[in-house]
Amino acid sequence: MRILPSFIAAFLLSACAAPTLRGTGDLGVVIERASGSVAVVDNTARAVLGRVEGLGDLSHASVVFSRDGRHAYVFGRDGGLSKVDLLERKIARRVIQAGNSIGGAISQDGRLVVAQNYQPGGVKAFDAETLELLADIPAAFGDGKQFSKVVGLADVPGSKFAFALFDAGEIWVADLSTPRQPKVTKFRNIGSQPYDGLVTPNGRHYIAGLFGEDGLALVDLWRPEQGARKILANYGKGQEKLPVFKMPHLRGWAVAGGRAYLPAIGRHEVLVVDTATWQEVGRIPVKGQPVFVMARPDGRQIWVNFAFPDYSHVQVIDTLEQKVVQTLSPGKAVLHMEFTPRGEHVWISARDDNRVVVYDTAGFARLAELPVQNPSGIFFTSRAARIGF
Amino acid sequence: MRILPSFIAAFLLSACAAPTLRGTGDLGVVIERASGSVAVVDNTARAVLGRVEGLGDLSHASVVFSRDGRHAYVFGRDGGLSKVDLLERKIARRVIQAGNSIGGAISQDGRLVVAQNYQPGGVKAFDAETLELLADIPAAFGDGKQFSKVVGLADVPGSKFAFALFDAGEIWVADLSTPRQPKVTKFRNIGSQPYDGLVTPNGRHYIAGLFGEDGLALVDLWRPEQGARKILANYGKGQEKLPVFKMPHLRGWAVAGGRAYLPAIGRHEVLVVDTATWQEVGRIPVKGQPVFVMARPDGRQIWVNFAFPDYSHVQVIDTLEQKVVQTLSPGKAVLHMEFTPRGEHVWISARDDNRVVVYDTAGFARLAELPVQNPSGIFFTSRAARIGF
Repeated sequence: MRILPSFIAAFLLSACAAPTLRGTGDLGVVIERASGSVAVVDNTARAVLGRVEGLGDLSHASVVFSRDGRHAYVFGRDGGLSKVDLLERKIARRVIQAGNSIGGAISQDGRLVVAQNYQPGGVKAFDAETLELLADIPAAFGDGKQFSKVVGLADVPGSKFAFALFDAGEIWVADLSTPRQPKVTKFRNIGSQPYDGLVTPNGRHYIAGLFGEDGLALVDLWRPEQGARKILANYGKGQEKLPVFKMPHLRGWAVAGGRAYLPAIGRHEVLVVDTATWQEVGRIPVKGQPVFVMARPDGRQIWVNFAFPDYSHVQVIDTLEQKVVQTLSPGKAVLHMEFTPRGEHVWISARDDNRVVVYDTAGFARLAELPVQNPSGIFFTSRAARIGF
Repeated sequence: MRILPSFIAAFLLSACAAPTLRGTGDLGVVIERASGSVAVVDNTARAVLGRVEGLGDLSHASVVFSRDGRHAYVFGRDGGLSKVDLLERKIARRVIQAGNSIGGAISQDGRLVVAQNYQPGGVKAFDAETLELLADIPAAFGDGKQFSKVVGLADVPGSKFAFALFDAGEIWVADLSTPRQPKVTKFRNIGSQPYDGLVTPNGRHYIAGLFGEDGLALVDLWRPEQGARKILANYGKGQEKLPVFKMPHLRGWAVAGGRAYLPAIGRHEVLVVDTATWQEVGRIPVKGQPVFVMARPDGRQIWVNFAFPDYSHVQVIDTLEQKVVQTLSPGKAVLHMEFTPRGEHVWISARDDNRVVVYDTAGFARLAELPVQNPSGIFFTSRAARIGF
């Protein structure tokens, strides 16, 4: 009989003792920008499970998830792309893929992770398993020697990705079904300086906000032959040139019951738009300049946070009543909100109070407070099952 | 130095070698009715991982998932309710909760599992963790001494459940936010013999099909004070009394782009209904009597299977074109279909060919065939994040 030293047995035991076998459907991450880390959270237990550090500059960081929910892909501002293992709570892989980057997306089938970059301007696609570079799509425009900053990247069905070129005034749709041979469809002259974009929850309409002029650019991805068109011609900073404390995030746009709810720019209003005609059908007064305007998954409520100086409040619009029904004060500097998958709770980050607050969305009870260092974005793994997140 | 026999080390190793640490977002189960088992599947690898047996009579079985995606709750026809651990691939808990049962649901927050029963007629709620009985709601009607079969159970936001009483012609909504003290709202005289029901994907409208008369009963759960009303007065078997080979499943109803797509009863048609007015706006001819009419998650396609004798085919309707664009022959006796979370693939069970076939939904390529014993229902864990599944 062979023998094994006890320290080997102890090693074997400890190796299998942690991490715990568990489901990943209720996991998530909270960005801790100041420390370059993420808190790994459990939205059933409403608890912080641990922390993964060493993720670089997480200003404006965003996150997508592998289709099995085990890994979070964290896109840093410094071009770092980190694949974080939520079960083992460690960095599984990490590459520096650009000099200045602003977020990413994951393909419908989960096989490709795509980053959008300011410098060098363009889009890069990576194998989701290995982070091997598969495609590099420089955002060349004009004489072909200039490269645009890329914004508003969103996955759409069919292994496609839509994005906008800030400097070029173009919207591109890249078909990556054969990743090493991307096919790019370009929509030119869509408007001046697109600064952000989104795809509607059904993956049909891509919309880019314009910084250089009023209005929004819309492409019907089911009817690409119709080209881009301008909608909501008065949407923007307008003639009065109101002070704008923070350009609102389009990605937060809520679409519910055939209506889209948009943050007005510079005004204390949420705009209501009919998604069949893309005409404005109403305005709802709110407490400040809206930043994120997000629909609860069932579409009954719209939750709104605000730019400075109203950034310690959150308001809730009832879509049946078409008015604000609740005002909450989760803490100082509310930066982001995330609903649990079926919308019974919402998690809200209060950066300057170092906490994430969890509310019941039916009765607005404050259910929990979690200590997180300067929290900003909150992302749950249920995003893996959604289009355009 | 103490020593350990190698068999102990081997035991330690084998104890931690299986089950594998993995995410649960891409897992699922396929019902194997004949053998009372489920095949546990991985929709990334497109593979059968294993089998869990001993689940009793799985005729018309249905499945819901824990919010972490680790456990499947399997509702058997014989009243068995089994909690299956998908990671360890074993039965974690099992109770016999009724004599004759027809499916179940899980609450928005994942804390309650609810079964609907024919015998004894009523609904029972269980702690999702322990399967302890928390609430028993007998479906008493009339003089209070009769108990109705319960059908069409669906979870709705706010820890509520909607269901219909076949024998009583009633729709009930049970608020289980305090599980041991259910509050039941009853809608009476909703029509004759409701035989199935569904809630729209936003959780707003509950609709019951009627066996005893034409038309459907609708309750606007956001406006319960308006009561139930009749819609689509001609929906049903109609005057001609066509032979109906199989009553279609309402649960499969597709809602996409403001329209609902319904299986006609006895006719080779899919009905198109405007969900704002609940008026019929079109009919699409199909190959046979439709059974399941299901929307791809982005709403661009509607997939339809059929009753005998056309049950070896599946047709695909393009919602933009409003017509059939593809006919497939996955195998004999197609009983169910399930889309991957973002809809790039669909899994189809061909019972009499003992296989599940996986198709790409963009180009209709046949990607894989999996050997499964007499497969019927297919259920993926992404259902845990959806309302009314």
